[in-house]
Amino acid sequence: MVQIEQDIMAKNQSYANANRAAFAARGLFVVNLVSSPGSGKTSLLVKTAEALKGELPLAVIEGDQQTGLDAARIAATGVAAWQINTGKGCHLDAHAVGHALEHLPPLQNGILFIENVGNLVCPAGFDLGEAHKVVILSTTEGEDKPLKYPDMFHASDLMILNKSDLLPYVDFDVEKAATYARQIHPRIKTLTLSARTGEGLDSWLTWLRTGATHARAVP
Amino acid sequence: MVQIEQDIMAKNQSYANANRAAFAARGLFVVNLVSSPGSGKTSLLVKTAEALKGELPLAVIEGDQQTGLDAARIAATGVAAWQINTGKGCHLDAHAVGHALEHLPPLQNGILFIENVGNLVCPAGFDLGEAHKVVILSTTEGEDKPLKYPDMFHASDLMILNKSDLLPYVDFDVEKAATYARQIHPRIKTLTLSARTGEGLDSWLTWLRTGATHARAVP
Repeated sequence: MVQIEQDIMAKNQSYANANRAAFAARGLFVVNLVSSPGSGKTSLLVKTAEALKGELPLAVIEGDQQTGLDAARIAATGVAAWQINTGKGCHLDAHAVGHALEHLPPLQNGILFIENVGNLVCPAGFDLGEAHKVVILSTTEGEDKPLKYPDMFHASDLMILNKSDLLPYVDFDVEKAATYARQIHPRIKTLTLSARTGEGLDSWLTWLRTGATHARAVP
Repeated sequence: MVQIEQDIMAKNQSYANANRAAFAARGLFVVNLVSSPGSGKTSLLVKTAEALKGELPLAVIEGDQQTGLDAARIAATGVAAWQINTGKGCHLDAHAVGHALEHLPPLQNGILFIENVGNLVCPAGFDLGEAHKVVILSTTEGEDKPLKYPDMFHASDLMILNKSDLLPYVDFDVEKAATYARQIHPRIKTLTLSARTGEGLDSWLTWLRTGATHARAVP
């Protein structure tokens, strides 16, 4: 079993390395969004696509066990999207992401978003070639999630606390969540926002613009 | 790979069958709670424990990647709880559940709750010997989850729509969620409640009492 797991991880890593090289050659900033189901990844991507589509080349790879619902929501904004259905699988892998690229229009000096399967466990261990994993935690999920799912918060460089519009109606302590996340990953950054109302979205857009500038291929 | 997966599932099934026989011998009604992280499984169990502890023998097996936070919340109600930490694992298995029983006081003619790891994918395929899987979907997660994670809703006999107190503040259509769930599993039942306010809890308690009565060992 251990040998097989090592083989799977080694194979994934070699595909991830190839993806990373391909992304660098195209000057792409690639972000891998991870979270529980229903924390608002797609809603955040829809708002982000609407805000940035005139400014930067964008594309989205969507991951779900079943349905093409999320890719359809992105496509409605006018941004190209490709849906991967994982069937029984609980995460995207680098091989599938590499092939998804073939189905998207050529993208250069922009941002590629990968929305992983909603799952706080499995996607943590799989490098897809992204620059950063970004973990979304919504204010309805409780502050203890970084402690209970440490691998995911350790693997992520940014934590987005989504659904800030629901803070008045839930028992959620933003400071406590940020403290727990830093306990697991001292350098993790935290942004609080509401994909629904747009509150706090500017900091996220700024973070993305900075990343895209750094990733841009020197002509 | 397929052979190894078959071996794992066959081994789990034989442990699950042994658990089921042990549960039947003790007259236990055993419920396996599954959901996304943060949908309110533990909060529901705390309210349930408080409501039923004087009336029926109860115990709880808690599953999480890390921490004993949930078992501590249950234990604070006076109901016995044992925490399983799965480490890298994304679900409980029947073998671990069998061993957890050894750490709980002897229970007879009552209800054993198993709270699985928060994950809408992995726990679907693993029988623990329970009478029913019960899937919790909270009103903040979106109605489309039964379609996107069909295995879990197919495996569950009851869907609890939790966080009904947040319905005025979110875009969630209870009827649509129930319709989607029935599309995947025509005989699934749906209960809407709020573990936080207690609204709708009575139907859940009635469902549990009926199950416990049916499971009771004939003397």
